[in-house]
Amino acid sequence: MDRGSIAIWNSPGTNAGTLTSDSGSLINVPCSSTARFDLEAKPSATTPEELLAAAEAGCFTMTFSELLAAAGHPPHSLRTEVRVQLVRPGGRWEIPSLRLHCTAVVPGISEQEFLALAHEARVQSPIARALRADVTMTVSLESAPGPGWYAPLQQA
Amino acid sequence: MDRGSIAIWNSPGTNAGTLTSDSGSLINVPCSSTARFDLEAKPSATTPEELLAAAEAGCFTMTFSELLAAAGHPPHSLRTEVRVQLVRPGGRWEIPSLRLHCTAVVPGISEQEFLALAHEARVQSPIARALRADVTMTVSLESAPGPGWYAPLQQA
Repeated sequence: MDRGSIAIWNSPGTNAGTLTSDSGSLINVPCSSTARFDLEAKPSATTPEELLAAAEAGCFTMTFSELLAAAGHPPHSLRTEVRVQLVRPGGRWEIPSLRLHCTAVVPGISEQEFLALAHEARVQSPIARALRADVTMTVSLESAPGPGWYAPLQQA
Repeated sequence: MDRGSIAIWNSPGTNAGTLTSDSGSLINVPCSSTARFDLEAKPSATTPEELLAAAEAGCFTMTFSELLAAAGHPPHSLRTEVRVQLVRPGGRWEIPSLRLHCTAVVPGISEQEFLALAHEARVQSPIARALRADVTMTVSLESAPGPGWYAPLQQA
């Protein structure tokens, strides 16, 4: 399996360009240092951190879904949000950790089995295992999708 | 700095869902285990691996652009492709490494300084430093963008 993406920077004088991925899910999507470092409340372009967050959110959710189904509890709904921090403690930018929160509707599963499988998904997911940064996880088992589950992200 | 994305899986019986990112660069973008594992020549949906590739491609290119400009050689064009492999050597999926290839048009720079700054960018980029997987890099200094530089990705 081999998947990839291309960054093209061709506007001299700016630190900005575009990203395009194999599948076409990203096609000439703007990516810029302004969106990354200028504390915009609503980022004007994508950033490497939100793409890493998307990679881990997708990977964890796929792994968890597979483990739940294999245990006889196919999930009704899963919602996983991943936040990536970028800090500069010693003069250079670092990603200390990723925070992952998963809310789930899984009919018939016990809280104990749910927690065990969530932990297993975090440990097994290939993206998390490719990371040096920690992935800290919280999970919540719910009886039905709550209000706002499927809503767009709230900006800080 | 805090950026994130959300995965929503709500089609019971499939291992597929959608991804949405803070900036809106991803809005309900399909992500599926079919695209990830079924060896599709043209992936039908995004995968965690191509998103990780996009994160590293954007991060490296932004860092390299900044270092070149700081050294008095703002780049005319940079093109960075990152490929991510997913293999299963011992029964579970792993990302052993990322391959990064950068072609660049940087007026007036020596090959030696170009190579030194590319190496520095690889070492400094926050995404690469958050990874346990190796990032192997090749670079090419060119006098002008070649044919196909800005073309869509070729599928294998």
